Amino acid sequence: MAASVRPLLHLCFVVIASMFALAKSPTAAYAAPRVTEFTLDNGLQVVVIPDTRSPVVTHMVWYKVGAADEPKGVSGIAHFLEHLMFKSTEHIPSGEFSKIVSRLGGQDNAFTGHDVTSYFQRISKDRLPKVMEMEADRMANLKLAEKEVLTERDVILEERRSRIENNPAAILDEQMDASLYLHHPYGVPVIGWEHEIAQLSPENAMTFYKRYYAPNNAILVVAGDVTPEEVKKYATETYGKIPANPAAPRSVRPSDPPQRVARRVTLEDPRAGKASIHRDYVVPSYATAAPREAEALDLLAKIALDGPTSRLYKKLVVEDKVASSAGGSYMGSALDDGKFSLYAVAADGVELDRLEASIDAVLSDVAANGVTSAELERAKNTYVAEYIYDNDNQASLARRYGWALSIGRTIPQIEGWPDEISKVSLDDVKKAAGSYLDARRSVTGILKPLKAPVAEATPSKSRS
Amino acid sequence: MAASVRPLLHLCFVVIASMFALAKSPTAAYAAPRVTEFTLDNGLQVVVIPDTRSPVVTHMVWYKVGAADEPKGVSGIAHFLEHLMFKSTEHIPSGEFSKIVSRLGGQDNAFTGHDVTSYFQRISKDRLPKVMEMEADRMANLKLAEKEVLTERDVILEERRSRIENNPAAILDEQMDASLYLHHPYGVPVIGWEHEIAQLSPENAMTFYKRYYAPNNAILVVAGDVTPEEVKKYATETYGKIPANPAAPRSVRPSDPPQRVARRVTLEDPRAGKASIHRDYVVPSYATAAPREAEALDLLAKIALDGPTSRLYKKLVVEDKVASSAGGSYMGSALDDGKFSLYAVAADGVELDRLEASIDAVLSDVAANGVTSAELERAKNTYVAEYIYDNDNQASLARRYGWALSIGRTIPQIEGWPDEISKVSLDDVKKAAGSYLDARRSVTGILKPLKAPVAEATPSKSRS
Repeated sequence: MAASVRPLLHLCFVVIASMFALAKSPTAAYAAPRVTEFTLDNGLQVVVIPDTRSPVVTHMVWYKVGAADEPKGVSGIAHFLEHLMFKSTEHIPSGEFSKIVSRLGGQDNAFTGHDVTSYFQRISKDRLPKVMEMEADRMANLKLAEKEVLTERDVILEERRSRIENNPAAILDEQMDASLYLHHPYGVPVIGWEHEIAQLSPENAMTFYKRYYAPNNAILVVAGDVTPEEVKKYATETYGKIPANPAAPRSVRPSDPPQRVARRVTLEDPRAGKASIHRDYVVPSYATAAPREAEALDLLAKIALDGPTSRLYKKLVVEDKVASSAGGSYMGSALDDGKFSLYAVAADGVELDRLEASIDAVLSDVAANGVTSAELERAKNTYVAEYIYDNDNQASLARRYGWALSIGRTIPQIEGWPDEISKVSLDDVKKAAGSYLDARRSVTGILKPLKAPVAEATPSKSRS
Repeated sequence: MAASVRPLLHLCFVVIASMFALAKSPTAAYAAPRVTEFTLDNGLQVVVIPDTRSPVVTHMVWYKVGAADEPKGVSGIAHFLEHLMFKSTEHIPSGEFSKIVSRLGGQDNAFTGHDVTSYFQRISKDRLPKVMEMEADRMANLKLAEKEVLTERDVILEERRSRIENNPAAILDEQMDASLYLHHPYGVPVIGWEHEIAQLSPENAMTFYKRYYAPNNAILVVAGDVTPEEVKKYATETYGKIPANPAAPRSVRPSDPPQRVARRVTLEDPRAGKASIHRDYVVPSYATAAPREAEALDLLAKIALDGPTSRLYKKLVVEDKVASSAGGSYMGSALDDGKFSLYAVAADGVELDRLEASIDAVLSDVAANGVTSAELERAKNTYVAEYIYDNDNQASLARRYGWALSIGRTIPQIEGWPDEISKVSLDDVKKAAGSYLDARRSVTGILKPLKAPVAEATPSKSRS
């Protein structure tokens, strides 16, 4: 039961945190651990990250499948299956998985994104063989009882209500994504559309499971006080017994036609609080960008959008006093396109037109003139400091490698990232800003408080 | 060769004309022909519409499949297959189909919509057995040579360029549809996205053909100087020999989540001419509406949007002088949702804000106050006059029955339509306007001339 709730907590937070974590790959110069990589005969890719500071390990399995791989009409099935993985197998009674981990003194969790689904435990090193046995067991032997599937579906519907429907900013975000992606499945929310979640069946979950959950479509990441030889031995004895499924690797998804019109969506909601403006641009991700382009977008986001020293905050909050807060980020850790996102909350009495004019002024300026060398140096240094800091965190390290490998990056690319960042020039940043901060690639979301209470939006009629 | 060009001419025009044609079903009181309907053993539904005024027949085959039934990532395959159906079979050499019809003194054509694909010939009555034999032949025996498939793909790409890419209003329309439908495949253009058309293969076409082209997924409509007995005999000897395919009927498509945010897309284009505003609302179709709701929307569109006597035209062009033209329509002939659409072209020197305010004033007025009984009577009378007029046209009649039956309407529904229209009350119209002219169900498209020439929009990066 706890497991089914906790993954949801992570649906929003862990995924976003990890997007940044990807960026933070160390080289030897940045106190990098010595990572070992090998592949079992059945195709399971294994990565071992040594960390002997305490006798604990982080054990993660990453499936190279996510919500963007769902068939038409069954949105939410990837996340639903993630919940159901905490139910029963041949060897684990229903709902016991997390309780067993807990009794062994460990913690476990899972999350689903558009591109990946990940399961993990943090536990003392002597328990590693046991959690590997359990994780391998549910890779192959999941059992779904009709009744508990339907109960879990109600849990997810309730979670959707509490996380999306009760949060106007989350509703707007879903609608912005649906407008931003014309054809690509990133326009469908990870948790799924409510009317489709309500129809998900045990068969939908089992079909998705049997297609995608296989050792040759997964990456095992073990970080902690363990040797590669030990991991290899344990993994061979557990995961190694599961046959590969040649059909498991995902298909290429439909891609978007050219981004060619500026879009705008307006949500008026009595619960909205202060009015705010949100904007997303479709930009390349680390997986799709030309060399140094994604790194330039990372630096651009840091300089233009991130925190109180960013250009956006300084202009909107400090100088023009049109916003009470403002910020943004680049989400580059995606198999397909990435996203460059920002927001600003209107200060009291400020019209949204005026707020938007200030936002546009900041963006036009960086697009036309780039940034300064002092800003670029500071941003690079901040990133390096953050990587080093993250190297101290076993879970962050495991997530960095697992996520990046799942979207097709290689270990040299992950570890060479700080070097690539250091090579980004003023011109690279200017070029990225000039190319991608183009209104035609964007959707602008307007969230407004609605004074009078309003009836719920009438749902679309479905086919009769 | 001619056949491959002519279908395209109809892609835009015939489809839209037919949407209106659906509405125009006669009752006995409206000089209706006596229609006969029967089904062959293999599931082919046959409709015979007598018309003995001249010795010609219109022969149509309607497949209950269209662009909205395409698998993910192969947009355009329904229309592409329609083109390829004019290539070769076991018995017809490549490209000869239309030439044979022409040599027999007939005309032929085809078109593809989101819900239907239709092939038809108009020919002298004694040639009917021959065209039935040919049409039945290509229902079962299509042959696709790699080379001619690839050549035809280039033809379609060129057609897309000329019809969509050279027409800013068509580009905007595609983008508006992509925003209006959040999840439903009506958001994908019938002709397909260019980057996907460019990848379509003979295998894609053959897979679609083998799945959907079968007698139990088709409707044969014969209008003209022929008896039901003759049609039955010919059809049994030709179509009757083709086995049913139990897998042919289409699956239910993904439906949209609730329509909850007003959307807006802006296209600036140097070729745009005068600035214009376009708006589409998602509304029920005849297939999804509650009783009299679709009829009320038809009448509302007639009164509010259709022609120089409409409210929109009178207010924008005549009274406020903010538009040089304005109009709109209801497209209710759809398997899933329908669309209520309008546009206005700005008069010289008029700002778009002012134009949009006038549009909104017209719509708010009908939503709040409905229409007058004089307007409603006039609109009903106009429709009846148009139906009677259409009854005189053999092709219009055949299309009316074929289209409506293809989306699941019955003959009594088709023929009872004028009676249903006559029953629509002032209150029904007011209720439809109040329920569906809701900004949250809409997308507004802005088309603006761009003074300076601009580079082409950068295409989205595809997965590397």
